Amino acid sequence: MKDIDVLIEALPYIKKFHDKKILIKYGGHAMVDDEAKSSTARDTVLLKYVGMKPLIVHGGGPEISRSMDKLGKEPKFIKGLRVTDEETMEIIEMVLVGKISTEIVSELIKHDGEAISLSGKDSSLIFAHKKGASKIDEEIVDLGLVGEVDCVNTDLLEMFIENDYIPVISPVGIDEDGNSLNLNADTAAGEVASAIDAEKLIILTDVPGVLRDPNDPDSLIQKIRISEVPKLIEDGVISGGMIPKIETCVKAIENGVKSCHIIDGRKKHSLLLEIFTTDGIGTMIFE
Amino acid sequence: MKDIDVLIEALPYIKKFHDKKILIKYGGHAMVDDEAKSSTARDTVLLKYVGMKPLIVHGGGPEISRSMDKLGKEPKFIKGLRVTDEETMEIIEMVLVGKISTEIVSELIKHDGEAISLSGKDSSLIFAHKKGASKIDEEIVDLGLVGEVDCVNTDLLEMFIENDYIPVISPVGIDEDGNSLNLNADTAAGEVASAIDAEKLIILTDVPGVLRDPNDPDSLIQKIRISEVPKLIEDGVISGGMIPKIETCVKAIENGVKSCHIIDGRKKHSLLLEIFTTDGIGTMIFE
Amino acid sequence: MKDIDVLIEALPYIKKFHDKKILIKYGGHAMVDDEAKSSTARDTVLLKYVGMKPLIVHGGGPEISRSMDKLGKEPKFIKGLRVTDEETMEIIEMVLVGKISTEIVSELIKHDGEAISLSGKDSSLIFAHKKGASKIDEEIVDLGLVGEVDCVNTDLLEMFIENDYIPVISPVGIDEDGNSLNLNADTAAGEVASAIDAEKLIILTDVPGVLRDPNDPDSLIQKIRISEVPKLIEDGVISGGMIPKIETCVKAIENGVKSCHIIDGRKKHSLLLEIFTTDGIGTMIFE
Amino acid sequence: MKDIDVLIEALPYIKKFHDKKILIKYGGHAMVDDEAKSSTARDTVLLKYVGMKPLIVHGGGPEISRSMDKLGKEPKFIKGLRVTDEETMEIIEMVLVGKISTEIVSELIKHDGEAISLSGKDSSLIFAHKKGASKIDEEIVDLGLVGEVDCVNTDLLEMFIENDYIPVISPVGIDEDGNSLNLNADTAAGEVASAIDAEKLIILTDVPGVLRDPNDPDSLIQKIRISEVPKLIEDGVISGGMIPKIETCVKAIENGVKSCHIIDGRKKHSLLLEIFTTDGIGTMIFE
Amino acid sequence: MKDIDVLIEALPYIKKFHDKKILIKYGGHAMVDDEAKSSTARDTVLLKYVGMKPLIVHGGGPEISRSMDKLGKEPKFIKGLRVTDEETMEIIEMVLVGKISTEIVSELIKHDGEAISLSGKDSSLIFAHKKGASKIDEEIVDLGLVGEVDCVNTDLLEMFIENDYIPVISPVGIDEDGNSLNLNADTAAGEVASAIDAEKLIILTDVPGVLRDPNDPDSLIQKIRISEVPKLIEDGVISGGMIPKIETCVKAIENGVKSCHIIDGRKKHSLLLEIFTTDGIGTMIFE
Amino acid sequence: MKDIDVLIEALPYIKKFHDKKILIKYGGHAMVDDEAKSSTARDTVLLKYVGMKPLIVHGGGPEISRSMDKLGKEPKFIKGLRVTDEETMEIIEMVLVGKISTEIVSELIKHDGEAISLSGKDSSLIFAHKKGASKIDEEIVDLGLVGEVDCVNTDLLEMFIENDYIPVISPVGIDEDGNSLNLNADTAAGEVASAIDAEKLIILTDVPGVLRDPNDPDSLIQKIRISEVPKLIEDGVISGGMIPKIETCVKAIENGVKSCHIIDGRKKHSLLLEIFTTDGIGTMIFE
Repeated sequence: MKDIDVLIEALPYIKKFHDKKILIKYGGHAMVDDEAKSSTARDTVLLKYVGMKPLIVHGGGPEISRSMDKLGKEPKFIKGLRVTDEETMEIIEMVLVGKISTEIVSELIKHDGEAISLSGKDSSLIFAHKKGASKIDEEIVDLGLVGEVDCVNTDLLEMFIENDYIPVISPVGIDEDGNSLNLNADTAAGEVASAIDAEKLIILTDVPGVLRDPNDPDSLIQKIRISEVPKLIEDGVISGGMIPKIETCVKAIENGVKSCHIIDGRKKHSLLLEIFTTDGIGTMIFE
Repeated sequence: MKDIDVLIEALPYIKKFHDKKILIKYGGHAMVDDEAKSSTARDTVLLKYVGMKPLIVHGGGPEISRSMDKLGKEPKFIKGLRVTDEETMEIIEMVLVGKISTEIVSELIKHDGEAISLSGKDSSLIFAHKKGASKIDEEIVDLGLVGEVDCVNTDLLEMFIENDYIPVISPVGIDEDGNSLNLNADTAAGEVASAIDAEKLIILTDVPGVLRDPNDPDSLIQKIRISEVPKLIEDGVISGGMIPKIETCVKAIENGVKSCHIIDGRKKHSLLLEIFTTDGIGTMIFE
Repeated sequence: MKDIDVLIEALPYIKKFHDKKILIKYGGHAMVDDEAKSSTARDTVLLKYVGMKPLIVHGGGPEISRSMDKLGKEPKFIKGLRVTDEETMEIIEMVLVGKISTEIVSELIKHDGEAISLSGKDSSLIFAHKKGASKIDEEIVDLGLVGEVDCVNTDLLEMFIENDYIPVISPVGIDEDGNSLNLNADTAAGEVASAIDAEKLIILTDVPGVLRDPNDPDSLIQKIRISEVPKLIEDGVISGGMIPKIETCVKAIENGVKSCHIIDGRKKHSLLLEIFTTDGIGTMIFE
Repeated sequence: MKDIDVLIEALPYIKKFHDKKILIKYGGHAMVDDEAKSSTARDTVLLKYVGMKPLIVHGGGPEISRSMDKLGKEPKFIKGLRVTDEETMEIIEMVLVGKISTEIVSELIKHDGEAISLSGKDSSLIFAHKKGASKIDEEIVDLGLVGEVDCVNTDLLEMFIENDYIPVISPVGIDEDGNSLNLNADTAAGEVASAIDAEKLIILTDVPGVLRDPNDPDSLIQKIRISEVPKLIEDGVISGGMIPKIETCVKAIENGVKSCHIIDGRKKHSLLLEIFTTDGIGTMIFE
Repeated sequence: MKDIDVLIEALPYIKKFHDKKILIKYGGHAMVDDEAKSSTARDTVLLKYVGMKPLIVHGGGPEISRSMDKLGKEPKFIKGLRVTDEETMEIIEMVLVGKISTEIVSELIKHDGEAISLSGKDSSLIFAHKKGASKIDEEIVDLGLVGEVDCVNTDLLEMFIENDYIPVISPVGIDEDGNSLNLNADTAAGEVASAIDAEKLIILTDVPGVLRDPNDPDSLIQKIRISEVPKLIEDGVISGGMIPKIETCVKAIENGVKSCHIIDGRKKHSLLLEIFTTDGIGTMIFE
Repeated sequence: MKDIDVLIEALPYIKKFHDKKILIKYGGHAMVDDEAKSSTARDTVLLKYVGMKPLIVHGGGPEISRSMDKLGKEPKFIKGLRVTDEETMEIIEMVLVGKISTEIVSELIKHDGEAISLSGKDSSLIFAHKKGASKIDEEIVDLGLVGEVDCVNTDLLEMFIENDYIPVISPVGIDEDGNSLNLNADTAAGEVASAIDAEKLIILTDVPGVLRDPNDPDSLIQKIRISEVPKLIEDGVISGGMIPKIETCVKAIENGVKSCHIIDGRKKHSLLLEIFTTDGIGTMIFE
């Protein structure tokens, strides 16, 4: 009988986030196995049913690498950075749009969530331009078909949200000539979250959040004000791949998103625990 | 961490009853103390926030008796049945509409539920006629201003429901001359549930449900098909004040309500436990 | 045959006030007998049918006093002002909401007006705060559960008006803790009129309007500009209970109400005569 | 002060005909002088403002004759019936559409009625076919461009009515080749009334109604059931030009119009007196 | 097979002007014969069907002169300018509204265009005032019932456009007393185009456009910036009747119309050629 | 100047098919080169802009074969029929959804058509079941993950159409367990056309239509009534791969599609020529 109290405890959060848009960045590294995928899908559908408006922007790095392997396509790197040539872009698009998105949609539908997969190309959902060559370590480097987001077609997303569909978005952009561009999934998620005035941006990844000591999961920092970020980077607490994630969060908050969350998407019900409990389970970034 | 599973366990019920109307008959005997009242209000608001459309029809017998006492108004009885004369009707209306309804609205508002109290007279919400004299034990008896429901103004209720208000309805009817009529609260609840195509009619009372042995709470009958009702009455399992309640349930189901529930409204979270768990905690009547 | 000219004479007023909101403050002292009540209701319904949007805020002083008498509740006074303790508030609410409002609704429905009674508590229609102790004649006095209006939930009222219902509002406020507060009915009427951008505020009371000589009904002042009010008060022409009424009018006009009218609600068709004739029958206050 | 009772007496009719469509056939013989035209326009606007939905179909015989005279166009007759050749049709259209309709619109606008003149040709409002030759007194006669109504474009009329415009319709039809056809104005009015489900068809003409003795205005028959019509024709009570008018009324009632009225449009406020008084001033035909 | 390329070539224009309002001034001198009228109507309907929103304001000078002749009405002139007395105004209105408008509507309907004829008087579509006496050649001259446009009732036009009707407007204005006023058709067209935010104003007349040498059709000036107009007038290139047309165009463009076109309406498909080809066939005025 | 007549000639077709849904089956064999793809996209966008509602269901056989080759995946055949195992299904989905659909969307967007790629899985757009083993040549054969369509989610498609998006649909079905199923593209197109009440189903393929003599393109049969189909199959005129295409057409027409067309999609503007010319360029099947 006590269990039902959890519902009552969740009520303040359900009220607070009622009708609010929650942008879930579903990272490729969080898609560890079928059970995790099913669990994330079920949690997302629950958010929908208790009155929120979830949207998903997914990644897919590991799966893309596997597919390139299979196709015998050698990845090219310049100064440690992957170069996206035309053939690579074609594979990326096939994997993101034709495989990962459709799989996520399948999982959501299994749990009775009306989901629709969208590429950033659909009706120019994510309009972008080629990043162009940039200087890295004193060298001019062109990473190929990599895009920077110019704008997001929110009309299209609003249509889906108003009609109770869950949009599942691949981080592929389209330029003014109709070409596909490879987008960083975190960045794309941040841009979409900002454009649609999301309440939250939740990044599901494969670490517990920002750790003071990377080897000690108990050193999790639960809350970071955006004003504290520069110092944390300087001190090396935020480092490596976490830096662009945090920067995406800072930018999203500056653009009006109320809070950003970095959580371990592999952990069961991490999404619900982050939203429906006071402390959450990961790191929250806020103003 | 396990606790969050309750949310997941509730999901199938949340889905199933999404956008469905739930008519809660809130009996006077279930309003035992402030904590119980607050708890029922909070549970009702939770139903609203997780996507259902709750409506309340309340009773108020004990409170009416208290008020008549205070006013020195002697209750009149014929053959053991209370007679509603004009003065009594005036007191009933003041208590139901001016006290109990407004209190329930206060409690719901405290929990962020947008609630509106309605008398059956408002815009002829519950149109009724005087019951007239009837034969009881070979004697012609006129119980006074007691009404039988003719029809329910569902347009008005739909307007409230569509605009996300929780209607709180007093069991007072209006006849074609604009007179007030005293209605049996269970019957009124059943008629409203039928008229608005409610998914469920939940009667909050002060017993655990239908008991095989009235002295043994463990003898609760969890499920009763309406076809089994006549036999259960014949056998005396359903008896006394439970008979009209069950008859209201049978009629409601025949009119399209999917299931009726008789539960102990004094018990904490009885509403949630009945809706969100497989077995519930009271008696369910269904087709 | 000549009679029909009255319709033609009313046409300019019907045009002028088409689709305009008319707030009728229906004072307790204007509810003298059944015939007067029926006549006021019929006039209100006529306003509705010829295209205006009437709303009623009612008082109920005399009825409240009668009920307190019956219940043996001694009224408490400090410095001649009534004190509203919890028990008194409960009685006030029962009488205003459970008796007077429902009676007015009955009368309107008898004349085919779709009316709905509302307490200021319904969906926080009239949000207020406790007035607090104030200094009267050098003494600190706390009049108890007396409220000052903070804001009016116009969404709710607009919903009723758009759907062609006539709202009948009891002057009871709700504070942030869900408590009931006693409101001055004139003040409440003025606040509602301002909030909904009423064209007119018409105060039905038991005097013919503002009289130069209180003993001479022929000394009625037909029109008062709000700029003339201070002088009239100074000269003692506006005095006693008329002062707060006029102050309500002045404030309403400053908030955008086009004109306020103080008329004798006991007089047959006073409402129609005030609206549909050039001179009216009472006192009009305007900018 | 007594006068205001007329408003109250009108209330039951205002209620009864609220939101109902009233088709006014405004005959050419009722347009006697400027004052009569102004009065009819004002009455029509009053109907609109008190909640009805008036439409006008007008005639124009006398004006057409005057214009043909001026243009030196000799009217042609066969067996006493006017023949509509192409040149005549052109004049008819210019007079009905370009003169009478625009004048009626001017009058309505002067009284603040939003009116729009429509020809039966506008968006094929009145689709018709040429009547063809018919046998009259054993002789085959072709009256030329005279039309019989096939159907009425109610979508167009509903658009005007919903947007609160008063349609003013000239009795000109259009055939499938886009040609104009001369329509009998009474018949056209009856067809439009039937098509739009009018509550009433009111024919404004230059006689008081159906008289038992044509020389005695006091012999007016106030009410005629459609079942009584054949006998009245047989007895010669209904005769001459009154026969087709009554036949139009009978057909309209058979098609669902609730009542038809033949009244003297030259009489001041005849429209209002017919609608707002118990006996009316002309003859009512009903089922 | 090559022909179909024309459709493809038209596509950029179809896209560019999709959902845009195109105001066609259909001059009386362009209505040369039945074939030309039919062709203009068909072209207009085609614009509608490929997604534009055409409106027509027509003239009718030659037809008015013919009708005045027939009626033996002597035209009056002061200093070479026609004077509009009451009788003349009546004839003008009959011809414009009752003849030319209804004919254009007939032609449009024949080609399946849902058209509605409107006078500037309908629901005060074109509100105007009498121009008053003005000084011409040192003499005070009053040209009679000639109007200057004050405002255009765009609500009415938007209603037609939204419901897919083609409005056909006669250049007749209405003043505050309900009187008809004669309007210059070019000016009226310009005012309507400005009021409804038309994309284009296309003036169909009987010359090829602005010619450098009036005797040489090959000297057509295809494009004129409004800044070039004063010089062209000074140089005498724009002269006579072309001056007010060009001034109308300049004013329309200053009020937001994107481009104005003066083309030879007698030429087959001139409307389509002007809109769907790069160079057009007449003169375009733009900013 | 003559060219513009093509627009006028197209007008009857533009009118006839205004607001009508046109389902284009875009076969893989019709996607021969970039120019053909661009041309088909431009023609489709033109249909949209001139008022029709095009939808695309595409195939992709040749591209799927190429991708399987690249991935070193050996196609499996039983009795000459391709077997779809899980790995094959994954490749099919990646190619159809992630490559062909996104390419078509790119082309449409380049020509300003707002297009959205949809898999049959999106919001269960095409609900299907596994075909199961069937007897072929006396042998039980299971072709694997091949689906038969159960129903089409027309709500989703209507949402896109109403909001002016062009849906581009991959022939992938979803079963009740969320699995992907390979669908025959012709069949899927026929089912979608029937479900949305398409006016036309146009199959773009790589033959000119049905030929009496397969070696003689001049032997094209322009029109076939569905009643003639059995005889044509019996006579061997319809044979091989054309049989299932024609059967799809017959079924679609029986389900309400007005006409089906088999045309050579490789031919420039074949879509426009088929729709906008009297004879078309392929074979039309109709009732």
